[in-house]
Amino acid sequence: MSDSIKDILKAVQEGSLSIEEALLKLKTAPFEDLGFAKVDLHRKVRKGVAEVIYGAGKTAPQIVKIAEVMINNGQNTILITRLAPDIAEEIKNTAYFDLEYHKDAKIGIIGKKPKPSGIGKIVIATGGTSDIPVAEEAALTAEVLGNEVVRLYDVGVAGLHRLLSHLDEIMSASVIIAVAGMEGALASVIGGLASCPVIAVPTSVGYGASFGGMTALLSMLNSCASGVSVVNIDNGFGAGYLASMINHMGVM
Amino acid sequence: MSDSIKDILKAVQEGSLSIEEALLKLKTAPFEDLGFAKVDLHRKVRKGVAEVIYGAGKTAPQIVKIAEVMINNGQNTILITRLAPDIAEEIKNTAYFDLEYHKDAKIGIIGKKPKPSGIGKIVIATGGTSDIPVAEEAALTAEVLGNEVVRLYDVGVAGLHRLLSHLDEIMSASVIIAVAGMEGALASVIGGLASCPVIAVPTSVGYGASFGGMTALLSMLNSCASGVSVVNIDNGFGAGYLASMINHMGVM
Amino acid sequence: MSDSIKDILKAVQEGSLSIEEALLKLKTAPFEDLGFAKVDLHRKVRKGVAEVIYGAGKTAPQIVKIAEVMINNGQNTILITRLAPDIAEEIKNTAYFDLEYHKDAKIGIIGKKPKPSGIGKIVIATGGTSDIPVAEEAALTAEVLGNEVVRLYDVGVAGLHRLLSHLDEIMSASVIIAVAGMEGALASVIGGLASCPVIAVPTSVGYGASFGGMTALLSMLNSCASGVSVVNIDNGFGAGYLASMINHMGVM
Amino acid sequence: MSDSIKDILKAVQEGSLSIEEALLKLKTAPFEDLGFAKVDLHRKVRKGVAEVIYGAGKTAPQIVKIAEVMINNGQNTILITRLAPDIAEEIKNTAYFDLEYHKDAKIGIIGKKPKPSGIGKIVIATGGTSDIPVAEEAALTAEVLGNEVVRLYDVGVAGLHRLLSHLDEIMSASVIIAVAGMEGALASVIGGLASCPVIAVPTSVGYGASFGGMTALLSMLNSCASGVSVVNIDNGFGAGYLASMINHMGVM
Amino acid sequence: MSDSIKDILKAVQEGSLSIEEALLKLKTAPFEDLGFAKVDLHRKVRKGVAEVIYGAGKTAPQIVKIAEVMINNGQNTILITRLAPDIAEEIKNTAYFDLEYHKDAKIGIIGKKPKPSGIGKIVIATGGTSDIPVAEEAALTAEVLGNEVVRLYDVGVAGLHRLLSHLDEIMSASVIIAVAGMEGALASVIGGLASCPVIAVPTSVGYGASFGGMTALLSMLNSCASGVSVVNIDNGFGAGYLASMINHMGVM
Amino acid sequence: MSDSIKDILKAVQEGSLSIEEALLKLKTAPFEDLGFAKVDLHRKVRKGVAEVIYGAGKTAPQIVKIAEVMINNGQNTILITRLAPDIAEEIKNTAYFDLEYHKDAKIGIIGKKPKPSGIGKIVIATGGTSDIPVAEEAALTAEVLGNEVVRLYDVGVAGLHRLLSHLDEIMSASVIIAVAGMEGALASVIGGLASCPVIAVPTSVGYGASFGGMTALLSMLNSCASGVSVVNIDNGFGAGYLASMINHMGVM
Amino acid sequence: MSDSIKDILKAVQEGSLSIEEALLKLKTAPFEDLGFAKVDLHRKVRKGVAEVIYGAGKTAPQIVKIAEVMINNGQNTILITRLAPDIAEEIKNTAYFDLEYHKDAKIGIIGKKPKPSGIGKIVIATGGTSDIPVAEEAALTAEVLGNEVVRLYDVGVAGLHRLLSHLDEIMSASVIIAVAGMEGALASVIGGLASCPVIAVPTSVGYGASFGGMTALLSMLNSCASGVSVVNIDNGFGAGYLASMINHMGVM
Amino acid sequence: MSDSIKDILKAVQEGSLSIEEALLKLKTAPFEDLGFAKVDLHRKVRKGVAEVIYGAGKTAPQIVKIAEVMINNGQNTILITRLAPDIAEEIKNTAYFDLEYHKDAKIGIIGKKPKPSGIGKIVIATGGTSDIPVAEEAALTAEVLGNEVVRLYDVGVAGLHRLLSHLDEIMSASVIIAVAGMEGALASVIGGLASCPVIAVPTSVGYGASFGGMTALLSMLNSCASGVSVVNIDNGFGAGYLASMINHMGVM
Repeated sequence: MSDSIKDILKAVQEGSLSIEEALLKLKTAPFEDLGFAKVDLHRKVRKGVAEVIYGAGKTAPQIVKIAEVMINNGQNTILITRLAPDIAEEIKNTAYFDLEYHKDAKIGIIGKKPKPSGIGKIVIATGGTSDIPVAEEAALTAEVLGNEVVRLYDVGVAGLHRLLSHLDEIMSASVIIAVAGMEGALASVIGGLASCPVIAVPTSVGYGASFGGMTALLSMLNSCASGVSVVNIDNGFGAGYLASMINHMGVM
Repeated sequence: MSDSIKDILKAVQEGSLSIEEALLKLKTAPFEDLGFAKVDLHRKVRKGVAEVIYGAGKTAPQIVKIAEVMINNGQNTILITRLAPDIAEEIKNTAYFDLEYHKDAKIGIIGKKPKPSGIGKIVIATGGTSDIPVAEEAALTAEVLGNEVVRLYDVGVAGLHRLLSHLDEIMSASVIIAVAGMEGALASVIGGLASCPVIAVPTSVGYGASFGGMTALLSMLNSCASGVSVVNIDNGFGAGYLASMINHMGVM
Repeated sequence: MSDSIKDILKAVQEGSLSIEEALLKLKTAPFEDLGFAKVDLHRKVRKGVAEVIYGAGKTAPQIVKIAEVMINNGQNTILITRLAPDIAEEIKNTAYFDLEYHKDAKIGIIGKKPKPSGIGKIVIATGGTSDIPVAEEAALTAEVLGNEVVRLYDVGVAGLHRLLSHLDEIMSASVIIAVAGMEGALASVIGGLASCPVIAVPTSVGYGASFGGMTALLSMLNSCASGVSVVNIDNGFGAGYLASMINHMGVM
Repeated sequence: MSDSIKDILKAVQEGSLSIEEALLKLKTAPFEDLGFAKVDLHRKVRKGVAEVIYGAGKTAPQIVKIAEVMINNGQNTILITRLAPDIAEEIKNTAYFDLEYHKDAKIGIIGKKPKPSGIGKIVIATGGTSDIPVAEEAALTAEVLGNEVVRLYDVGVAGLHRLLSHLDEIMSASVIIAVAGMEGALASVIGGLASCPVIAVPTSVGYGASFGGMTALLSMLNSCASGVSVVNIDNGFGAGYLASMINHMGVM
Repeated sequence: MSDSIKDILKAVQEGSLSIEEALLKLKTAPFEDLGFAKVDLHRKVRKGVAEVIYGAGKTAPQIVKIAEVMINNGQNTILITRLAPDIAEEIKNTAYFDLEYHKDAKIGIIGKKPKPSGIGKIVIATGGTSDIPVAEEAALTAEVLGNEVVRLYDVGVAGLHRLLSHLDEIMSASVIIAVAGMEGALASVIGGLASCPVIAVPTSVGYGASFGGMTALLSMLNSCASGVSVVNIDNGFGAGYLASMINHMGVM
Repeated sequence: MSDSIKDILKAVQEGSLSIEEALLKLKTAPFEDLGFAKVDLHRKVRKGVAEVIYGAGKTAPQIVKIAEVMINNGQNTILITRLAPDIAEEIKNTAYFDLEYHKDAKIGIIGKKPKPSGIGKIVIATGGTSDIPVAEEAALTAEVLGNEVVRLYDVGVAGLHRLLSHLDEIMSASVIIAVAGMEGALASVIGGLASCPVIAVPTSVGYGASFGGMTALLSMLNSCASGVSVVNIDNGFGAGYLASMINHMGVM
Repeated sequence: MSDSIKDILKAVQEGSLSIEEALLKLKTAPFEDLGFAKVDLHRKVRKGVAEVIYGAGKTAPQIVKIAEVMINNGQNTILITRLAPDIAEEIKNTAYFDLEYHKDAKIGIIGKKPKPSGIGKIVIATGGTSDIPVAEEAALTAEVLGNEVVRLYDVGVAGLHRLLSHLDEIMSASVIIAVAGMEGALASVIGGLASCPVIAVPTSVGYGASFGGMTALLSMLNSCASGVSVVNIDNGFGAGYLASMINHMGVM
Repeated sequence: MSDSIKDILKAVQEGSLSIEEALLKLKTAPFEDLGFAKVDLHRKVRKGVAEVIYGAGKTAPQIVKIAEVMINNGQNTILITRLAPDIAEEIKNTAYFDLEYHKDAKIGIIGKKPKPSGIGKIVIATGGTSDIPVAEEAALTAEVLGNEVVRLYDVGVAGLHRLLSHLDEIMSASVIIAVAGMEGALASVIGGLASCPVIAVPTSVGYGASFGGMTALLSMLNSCASGVSVVNIDNGFGAGYLASMINHMGVM
C-alpha cells in the first residue's frame, strides 16, 4: 500500500494538514499510490506460478536483469515469449541461471514448470504441421502457467479421420485451443464436437487468398458452433494465457 | 455452314470473282459465318435435354416469346433461372404452356425433366437451412439437365454427426456441390471425405464478419482438400451446370 | 448408447449374424448410433437448465411445436433467440404456455429462469446505449443458462470515470462481456483492469469508418490486454453462451 | 477392412467379450479402423497411378524416406510438389532412385509417368509467359496422374488471334485449365468458347492493382461463362488434380 | 476580361493611383478577375455545341431557370445528366421549351443534337443488356457533344462470336467505350483487338463477388492491352465526354 | 468536490477512524468521488457558452427534459445534434422554450448563439453542394460554441478558380474545416495554401469507387500538406467542436 | 496477307480443290492466316516510328536477338521497357548497336528518337520528386513514339503556386499525364484547369494509408473533373502509349 | 514583391504600355510574381524559429547545400526529417556545421532548439515502447518549432494505472499527441480524459490483424471522444507540426 496516502492521512490525524489541503493532495496523487498495482498484468497470473517477460525488442542484458529481479523476489518460473534465437544464445552464455529455449515457439523458460493445478486438460490441436510453432507458443505458455497440455497436431479437416480418431481427448478436454491457417475450418469442426470452451487461433500459414491469416480469422469468427471465440492471428501466447485462466476458474 | 463463304468460293470457281477480291471479302466476313454459332452457350447444353433462359430483368412477354420459339424448335424442357414470383405468375396466366415454378430457388421449368443420363448421382449438401434456396437452384438446374440429385440439407460442420450419418451418399457421389455461408467449412470437410470433384458454392447467408459471403468464399478457396473448386457467391445455377457437365463426361 | 449396435453385437453373439455381415452393418450405421448424439448442441447445455431455439426464419407454429416437445420432455426453461416481434406476438396469442418477450434483445423465454449456479457473476458492459440490444441478448442468454448477471451499460472509454466508478464490479467478476461498437476500446481497457476472462463483442453500431462493426472487431482482436477473446459482430448469444460455459467450469 | 473390429466381433462371437465391453471398445476405436483410411488423400488418387508428396517444409531425408516406403509398397510413380531446388539437389545426390526435377514448377517426379488413361486431353492455357510456372505445376501433376496434356502458353486476350488460332485444341479438350494473372480475362473468354469444364487458376503475376492475384481471382469468379470454377491463387497442383479427376470420370 | 483590373490600370495611367497602391490591389484581387473563368468546366466543351447541366439534386424550377439562361445566351443544345423521371416530367409540364427524355440513361436533351464534327466514330460496346443504361449515358453525351456513335450492345466475351462479328466496327472506330460489369473482360479483349484509345467503364452490374463494380474496375485497370484507361464505376457521362474530347483532337 | 472523502478525512482528523481503515475506504471509493466529474464531456465545453445534446435515438420528451434541466441550471445556449425532423417538430409543439431547427444539418438550437469569442474566424469550405449538410453541422456547432464562421461552399478543386477567388478568407482564417467527398482533394489544396490548422472531413458523397467516403478519407490522410488532420466520415460535429477548441486556444 | 488462303482460293479457281474441301480448310485455318496479324500489338504503333520490347524477364541475348530482327526489318527506333540495369549493361557490352539507357525509368532506346509528329505537346506532371521514375517511363515512351514532351516535375498541390506558375503549359497541352502518389490530388486539380484529355497515373509512392498506390488510384477515379481517366499503378508506359495515341488522332 | 508587375505598372504609368497590352501581360504573368511565395511551406513555419528539410531520398551533399543556403539566410535552427543514419554520418563528416542526430526518430537538427514560445506544453503519449520512434519524430519536431514537450511513453490502456498516474500532465496539456499501434485505444481514452485538442497518430506497430497500422487508424477515426483528429500512419512529423501550430494559436 502506498506510503504517501498514509502520510497524508497521518498529517491530517496529527492536525498538521487541513482537510482542504488533504483533499487537494489526494486528487493529484498518482493513481499507483491508490493500490492500482493490482491491475498490473503480472499480478493477474496466479501468485507463485509464473511471471511473463515479453522478449521482442529487448536486449539480452535487459531480459537478464528483469529475470534476476523476479528470481530475487522469489519467483520460481519465468516465461519469456517472442525470444529471438540469438538473444536466447546470449542469455545462455551470460546469465547465472539456466534457460530452457524452444526455438520453434521462440519461448524461453527459466526455472521448473509448476505441477498442473487446473480443472482438467487443455487440448491444443493444429490443422497442419506448419501451425505447430504457434501451437507450441500456446502449449508452453499453458504449461508454465500450471496446466496439463495434450497436443493433437496435424489433425486438419481435410483428413477428418485423423481428428475423429482423437475424439476421446476432445470430449474430455477442459479447454481446447484450435490452431489453423488456410480456411480455419478446424475451429468450427472442433467447436461442433466439443462441449467445452474453444479458443480459435488463426495462423498466417497459407498462400494466395489466405491473406496472411485473414481468411482463417474471418472463418473462425463466423463459426456456427457455440462456445468458440477468437484471438489475434498467430497469438499463441494469448490463447495459452486465456486457456489457463479458464482452466483455473474457481480453483484459485 | 455459312452460305456466304460458299458463294464466295463458287464465284471464284466460276471466275466471276478475282482471288484478290475474294481475299478481301473473306477478311471482312462476319465471324458467325465461319461457323462460330457453335460457341453459343445454348449449344453447349447437350442437344435435346434442355435450354436455359436467364430470367432476371426480362418481362413476362419476352420470356414467353423466347420459350415459344424454343418449343417450336422441338425443345422438350426449358429452364428459367432468377425468375421473380410476379413474372412467374404473369407467365402462368398468359402462356399457353404450363410453368412449374419453384419459389425459393426462383426457378421456372417448362416441360418435363428428362430422365437422368449422367454417370452417377450429384449430391448437394448445405450447411444450414438458410442455404437451401441456393442449393435448390443448383439441384433443379442439375435435374433439368438430366441428372439424379441427392439432397443433404442442414448438415453443417457444427453438428458433425449429421454429416457423417450420410457418409454413404458422400462416398458414392459422382459430383458433390457443397453450399454454405458463414465460415464455409462444409466444403473442406466434404472435400476431405469424398473422392469425387467437389464444387463449393459460398452463400451470402450470415451476419457480422460474414461480409455477404466473402468469408465463405475465401475459406472455400483456401480449402486444404484436393478436388475442390469454387464458383461465385450464391451461384447455384453455375454449380448445377458445371456438375452436370462433369457428370456427363464421356457420356455424350 | 445406441441400441442398434447392441443389437448387431447380440446377433453376432447369438450366431445369427456372421462377422462379415456385422462389419458391413457397422461401417454403414449412422454415426448417431455410435453415441454421437452427445455432440448435439442442445446436449452441451447443462441438463435441466435450458434449451435454445434459434428463432430466425422459423414460423410461430414451428417454434410452438418445438417448444411443446421440449416441455413434454420435462424442460423447465426454453430460450428463443432472434425472435421477431410479430412472431412473438403470434406465439403469445396461440400457444398454451406463457412467453416472456424482450423486444430489444429479440429474446423470448418460456418458463422460469433457473437459479444462478455458476462460480461467480458475469459482468456485461457496453460502450454506449446503442450497444444495449446486443448486450441484452448476451445477458438474457446467460441468465437463462443459470448465471447471475451484472449490467454496466454506457461506460464507454470516452468518459473513463463512468467505467472506473464500477471498478469493484469489474474486479470481482467471474467473466466479463465487453460490448462496443465504434472503436471498440472498451475491451482493451477492461481487459487491462480485470483479472478474469473477457469476451469482446463488436457491434455494428457506428457510422463512417466503423464499417458495420469491422473496426471494432479488428480493434478488439488487437487488444494488448491478456485474457481477451472475440466473437462475431453483434453475436450477443454466442458471448452469453461462452460466458456461461466458463462460469460453470468445474461446477458440473 | 480393419482387423481390430473383426477381432472385437470375433471375441463377442466366441463369448470372450461381453456386449457391454464391445460397445465401449467400438466407441473408442480409432476411426481409421472403421475403414476411414479410404478418405486418406493418397487413396483418392487412382490405385497404381501415382502418389503425391507435398514437399514444402520437408527435409531431403524425410522425402527420401517417404518415397522409399511408397516404392517398397509397389508404387511406380511419385509426384513431389513445392520442392525447392536445393532439396531436389540433395535428394539427387543421396537417394538410390532417380529424380526428375522441374525447376520452374518446383516439381519432382520419381519413376515413369503412366500412360494417359483419361477420357480425353487436358488443355492448359496461360495468359502470359510469367504464368508458366503455375501452369507447369498443373501440367506435370496431370501427366503424372495419367492424362495427356496440351500446353497453350502465352495466349492472353490482349492478342486474341493467338488464342483463336488454337480454337481446335480448345474445342476438342476434355477439361481446360486457364492460368492467368493481371485481369484474368482468359478464363471468361475460354469459358465462352469451350464446351467442357474450365478450371481457372489466378496467378500472383502482375503489379499495382493486381494485388497479388486478388484481381484475377475476383474476375474469374465473376465470369459470365458457364462451366467455369476457380481454385486458389497459384494453386497449379489443385487444378491439375481436379482436372485429372474430371478427365477420369466414369473411367475408373 | 475583368473590368476591375482595367480600372486599376486606368487609374495608374491617369496618375490617380500610385504604383505601390496598385500592386497591393492587384495582389488581393480575386482570381476570377484575372480571367480564370476560362477554366470553368462549361468553357471546355467546344463553343456552340452543347452545355451540360448536372441534374442530380436540382429541382425542376432550378433546371428550367439554368436552361433558360443558356438558351437566351444562344445555346442550341443542352444536356442534362442524372435527371430523375419525376423531375423530367415536371420540366416537360412547366417549361416553354421541349425536353427529350431518355429514361434508362436518365438523360434529358433540350434542342437538337449537333451534326457530328469529330474525326471518326465512337463505338460503345457493352458486355450485357444490364450495362445498357450506363452505355446510353455515354452514347447520348457523345452525340450531344457532336459525335457519331455506333452501339454494340450485349457483346460480352462469354459469347465471343457476338463480339467478333462486329470486328469491322471495332477496327474502324476512332475511340471505343467498353462498358461491362461482372469480370470486365470486355475491355481487355477490345483493347487487344482495336488500334484506337479504349475507355473502360466498369458497371455495378453483377452479384456476389462483383462488389458493386469493384471487380470489373480492378480487372480493367489490370488490362494487359495497351491504349486502355478507366473511369469511375457507372460513369457513362465521363466516358462519353472524354471520348468526345479525343474524337475532336486537332479538329477545333 | 466529494463529501465522502471529506467525511473520511474529518473522521480521521477527529480520531473516529484509524489510518488503516481510512486507507481501505479510500482504495474502494468510487472514482467519481475523487473529482472525476471534471472529465465529463460537458465540462470540457467552456462554461457559459453551450451544452450539447446528442439527439440520435432520443425521444422528444427525453430531449425536452434534458434541455429543461440545463436551462434551469442557467444554461443560455443548447446545441442538439443528429435531431430528426419529426422529433424537432414534436419538440416545437410541446416544449415551452423555442427551438431553432436546421433541417439539412439536423441541428437544433435552444437559446441565442453566443457572441464570437475565439481568436479569429473559422472558415468552412466544401467541395460540392452535396457536402453542405455535413458542413452546416460543423458550422452551426462552431457558432453555438462561440465562433465566427465563414462559409465557402462549392469550391471544389475541379474548378480551381472558385477556390482561388477566396484566397483572402483562406489566408486570414484561424482554423479551416475542409469538407469533401469523392476524391477529397480539397483538403490537400487548402492545406497547401493556408498557414493555419486544417481539419479535413470526408463525406459519404459520391458513387462507384468512392466507397461511402472511404476514398476521400484515405486521400485526406495521405495529404502531402502539413497542418492537416482528419476526423471520421460525415463527422461535422467533431470537426466543428475541434475547430472551436483550437480557435479558443489561450483564450480561456 | 496470308499466302495459305490465297493458295486455297487459287486451288479453287484452278479446279484442283472442291468448294466443300475449301470450306473445311478455311474453317480450320489458323486465324493468323486470316489477316489477324493486324491486331498484333506491334502493328498498332504507327509504322516506321518505333517498336516496343517488354524487357522484364528477358535475358540480354534474347533482347539483342529480337532487336536485331527489328533492325534488319528496317526499324529505326526501338523502345525497351522495364529493362534492368545489369541486363542493359550486358546488352551494351555485347550488341553491335548502341543502347541509350535511362536508369530511373528502366528504359532502353535503340536508334534515334523520331521527330515529333503529333498534334501538340504532351505535358507530364508529377506531384513529387519520387514520382519521377514513373513519369520518365511515360515521357520516354511518348518521345520514342514521336511526341514532343514537356516535363513539369514536383508540382504537387501542397504547393499550389508551383503548379499555377506553369498554367501556360497546362493550358496549351494536347494531352496531359498526371503522375502522383499519396493522395493523388494532382489529377483532379489539373483536370479542373486543363481543357484536354488527362491521363492519371497513380504511383506506389507514399507510406501508411497510401497502400501501395491504392489511395491515389481510388482518388483519381473519383476525380470530379471531366476528361480524366486512369491507368494501373506505376504504369508509365501505358500512359505514354495512350497519350501518343491521342496526340496522333487524325494525324495518321 | 515581384518586380515584373511593378515594371508593367510603371510602363502603364509612363504611357509606354497600353492598358490592353498590360492586361495581357498580367494574365500570363507567372503566379509566383503575384506574391505566391507566401504559400510556400517554409513560410508557414514561424519566422526565425526553424526550417524543415525532408531528408528522404536526398544525398548528403544535397542536404548540406540546402542547409548552407538556409544558414546564410540567417536561419538559426534547421530540422531534417527521415534522415538515414549513413547520410547523417556523411553529413557529420563533411559539413562545416554541427549536426545533432537522433537515430530512432531519424531526425537531424542543425543549430540550437529555440526557447519554447507556445501557449503551454505539448504532451506526447505512446501505447508501448515500440511506438517511441514515431513519438520522438513528433517530439523533436515540436521542440525544434519552439514548444515544450512532455513525454509519457508506454502508458497503453492495457495497464490503465500507468496512464492514470499521469493525469496531471494530461489535464494541464495544451495539445496532446497520442501515438499507438495495435488497437489504438489510447487516443480514445486520452480524448475522454483531456480537455484540449488530441492528435492521434496510428503506428504500424503490431502483427496479425493490425494490418500495418490500419486497425489503429480506423479505431482512432471512430473515437467517441470529442476533440480527436487523426494523421497518417507513422506520421510523427505531421503530428508535431500541427501540434506546434495549435500551441502557437494567437501567439504569433
